[in-house]
Amino acid sequence: MVTPTGAISATALARHLGAWRPAGPQPTYRALADAIRVLMLDGRVPVGTAVPSERTLAEALDVSRTTVAYAYAALRDNGHLLSRQGARSVLRLPVQVPAEPVDLGAEGDVIKLNIAAPSAPEQIVHDGYRHALECAPGYLAGTGIYPNGLRALTETVAERFTHRGLPTAADQILITSGAQHALRLVLDTHVSPGDRVLLEQPTHHGTILALARHRARAVTIGLHPEHGWDLDQLESVVRLQRPALIFVIPDFHNPTGLLLDEAGRIRLGEISARYRVPVVVDETTAELALDVAAPPPLASFAPRGAEIITLGSASKTVWAGLRVGWIRVDGRPDTYALARYESDIGGAVFEQFAAQYALSHLDDFMPARLAALRAQRTTALAAIAEHLPGAVPVRGVGGLCLWVALPQPAATATAAAAAELGVRLIPGGSFGPHGGFDSHIRIPYTLDSDTLARGIGLVGQAYRQAVGDAVAAPPSSDRGLPDRMVV
Amino acid sequence: MVTPTGAISATALARHLGAWRPAGPQPTYRALADAIRVLMLDGRVPVGTAVPSERTLAEALDVSRTTVAYAYAALRDNGHLLSRQGARSVLRLPVQVPAEPVDLGAEGDVIKLNIAAPSAPEQIVHDGYRHALECAPGYLAGTGIYPNGLRALTETVAERFTHRGLPTAADQILITSGAQHALRLVLDTHVSPGDRVLLEQPTHHGTILALARHRARAVTIGLHPEHGWDLDQLESVVRLQRPALIFVIPDFHNPTGLLLDEAGRIRLGEISARYRVPVVVDETTAELALDVAAPPPLASFAPRGAEIITLGSASKTVWAGLRVGWIRVDGRPDTYALARYESDIGGAVFEQFAAQYALSHLDDFMPARLAALRAQRTTALAAIAEHLPGAVPVRGVGGLCLWVALPQPAATATAAAAAELGVRLIPGGSFGPHGGFDSHIRIPYTLDSDTLARGIGLVGQAYRQAVGDAVAAPPSSDRGLPDRMVV
Repeated sequence: MVTPTGAISATALARHLGAWRPAGPQPTYRALADAIRVLMLDGRVPVGTAVPSERTLAEALDVSRTTVAYAYAALRDNGHLLSRQGARSVLRLPVQVPAEPVDLGAEGDVIKLNIAAPSAPEQIVHDGYRHALECAPGYLAGTGIYPNGLRALTETVAERFTHRGLPTAADQILITSGAQHALRLVLDTHVSPGDRVLLEQPTHHGTILALARHRARAVTIGLHPEHGWDLDQLESVVRLQRPALIFVIPDFHNPTGLLLDEAGRIRLGEISARYRVPVVVDETTAELALDVAAPPPLASFAPRGAEIITLGSASKTVWAGLRVGWIRVDGRPDTYALARYESDIGGAVFEQFAAQYALSHLDDFMPARLAALRAQRTTALAAIAEHLPGAVPVRGVGGLCLWVALPQPAATATAAAAAELGVRLIPGGSFGPHGGFDSHIRIPYTLDSDTLARGIGLVGQAYRQAVGDAVAAPPSSDRGLPDRMVV
Repeated sequence: MVTPTGAISATALARHLGAWRPAGPQPTYRALADAIRVLMLDGRVPVGTAVPSERTLAEALDVSRTTVAYAYAALRDNGHLLSRQGARSVLRLPVQVPAEPVDLGAEGDVIKLNIAAPSAPEQIVHDGYRHALECAPGYLAGTGIYPNGLRALTETVAERFTHRGLPTAADQILITSGAQHALRLVLDTHVSPGDRVLLEQPTHHGTILALARHRARAVTIGLHPEHGWDLDQLESVVRLQRPALIFVIPDFHNPTGLLLDEAGRIRLGEISARYRVPVVVDETTAELALDVAAPPPLASFAPRGAEIITLGSASKTVWAGLRVGWIRVDGRPDTYALARYESDIGGAVFEQFAAQYALSHLDDFMPARLAALRAQRTTALAAIAEHLPGAVPVRGVGGLCLWVALPQPAATATAAAAAELGVRLIPGGSFGPHGGFDSHIRIPYTLDSDTLARGIGLVGQAYRQAVGDAVAAPPSSDRGLPDRMVV
């Protein structure tokens, strides 16, 4: 359950906690905080659960209210508890929102392995904004509001789809502020609170956060490290659970780098048509083929009656500081245009011209980008082998990330220790809609090779500290729930 | 009720429709469509109501299913009915989403009185993007992701608040993609489905659409054309209905141009503190003082315990094609930063530098902008007196719009007739969360005086046509509901 609507009573939480009290010198509040965190990482108390008031939990556990207050504060500090004024606090997975360093010179001191986004192709971005300065004058006399997106940009995006094997007209495209924004508009249009949405597990954590905002429930299929998508399982989940949407990342899946083959694309189209369920295809990383060429877009395989909604973005190919994405549908994207208007009126004019310039020059700069990514991935794989012995990365064929299985389930503790060492890292749990995945980390290979090697070295050090220091999970006293990590 | 959760049964709708059949040569389906539309404009069937299936309504009315299908299609075509795949169609007020003309030369043929957004101050916007080209290089090597906004821009926005009498630090500011986006992030954070939100009536129609997306319920207070806000009524609604938020536009209210005085600002702060309800202050038009200086921002009057969330935007002072707005809170805007990250990751880098440049040069270009707006308003008032005799505009003191009471309730029909004459106009109903207001139109004075005079001349012509042709409301057969327009 991703929806933040569930609450747990003090007595139920006390029962789940079992024998949580500290054995050694650890402060009581810290042991309580750790025990609550482990319950969530375990999946025994779902992410999004509202916790009891300090007073009632203190009574149920027979501790002072101060102990509970301190434990909640500790959970809040490390991002596991979200408090909102006038509402009960809810359990959540930590999200590291990057903050701009005041001094850019200090940037080099923190190694950001938490973000899979490449730096900008400087000349192209610069030239793009110069191009915008040339194009914009005719627009300055107008209102600047174009909810569908500027024609020049929708044409460029449509041409790229056509070039990739999916004939597309400009008026099938709606421009958004990136793929996350595109997804929110699709959810606005298709999903009501309580609806189910089928996801791959693991998946992009922005998608998980978006579903929670829409109070949708995630239902999942696993991805096999070698065989990828199990579409028999997917069809069976669709048949039994009737999700409102299926969300997939077939072209260099984030975080695994896996690629869905042509047979799988055909099958997904058939499932969409047979069960009348729209398939949302996130193509954010579709242009990042490192080892094999990607097949044509999934939508090009769709039979009559299928509904394929394709999302894309300039963030991973050009630069995330340029906020442009899109939605492609088979007809006209009018309902999404209305959703966009209601979301933020429309896109920025200069921004769209700059994106149009960069996207129409993809073939000029992508070969060098892909070569750099390949080299950085080689560096990352070597550093993982050296500094994280026993860790197993999925053998993806494109995208920006390695999804790495650790020998022991200590990703959260590793991320915490890495932060102390100056490396930001997102633990695996952030990529699972039900938490879990604490034996996985995601290593993006978007930084330069030197920084990457240094960062992974520090992650190795953090992992060794974490495994040495790991807080043992408290014995579970609950009945019928799995007494193990959800992985 | 704004929430799209209510449905009406075929028998109830048939009862409301009463004697709807055409007396003269009008086709049956057209008479049915008009009667359903009038029921909604009247407020007898709320906006957002799900209509019955074609089959059941045809049975209840004893007409052919084709007649109902044609009537629904007609409602759909003119924007009064929204259909979504797999769900019942819902009644809605028409929203005119502006589309970019393919040929900018054709722009002059349509007079856009539907948008209250000025053209750009060309030199400032141009210089702003040149400034961005100079600032950006240090950022191109990074990921480009800054969910709180660039420091240079948050500092500029904070300085402007301080200059206006509300001391503000940069880390109290979160940058958004405009004020509509800011409002959505606030609703994401504070409002659950079914919560009440208190609004002025009339209000900005983007706010009404946003509430509907969040499935919130609008409760309203009226604005008196001369005395403005009735804060006794507001407090009584707060006490009885306990809204989750209060939303106000105190500085040159959209669409009326009214200004809340200092006593009113103090009172709203007291109400926020006493009832523990956050007040969202939309300051989009706060810099557009035409006749009197605005008092300091509402938040500067807030007593201890009040929670004032201030939204602003560069859209109305600079240009709507530059998508930058902000949220100001008393502490740190971290929960909104998370909501922004989940909404669209963050703002565009170049865009923010361009906005920073323009906002730090406000004092250079605003005097000329305000002088132009004053002159255009004079033109608009004269044209209204000439072409719409008997119409009464509210005497606002700033902002971008005149809110005009027509002699007869024919705004929707006038807007339809105006469209035929090449003028886009939004009828008053779009500014009321419960519809109604069909005796009002909004006339923005953002176009040049010649175009404005020509546009209002055509609106006068459209009004005369509409009053001549008006479809009489069908006799009402419902009991206990007001048999009059909700105004």
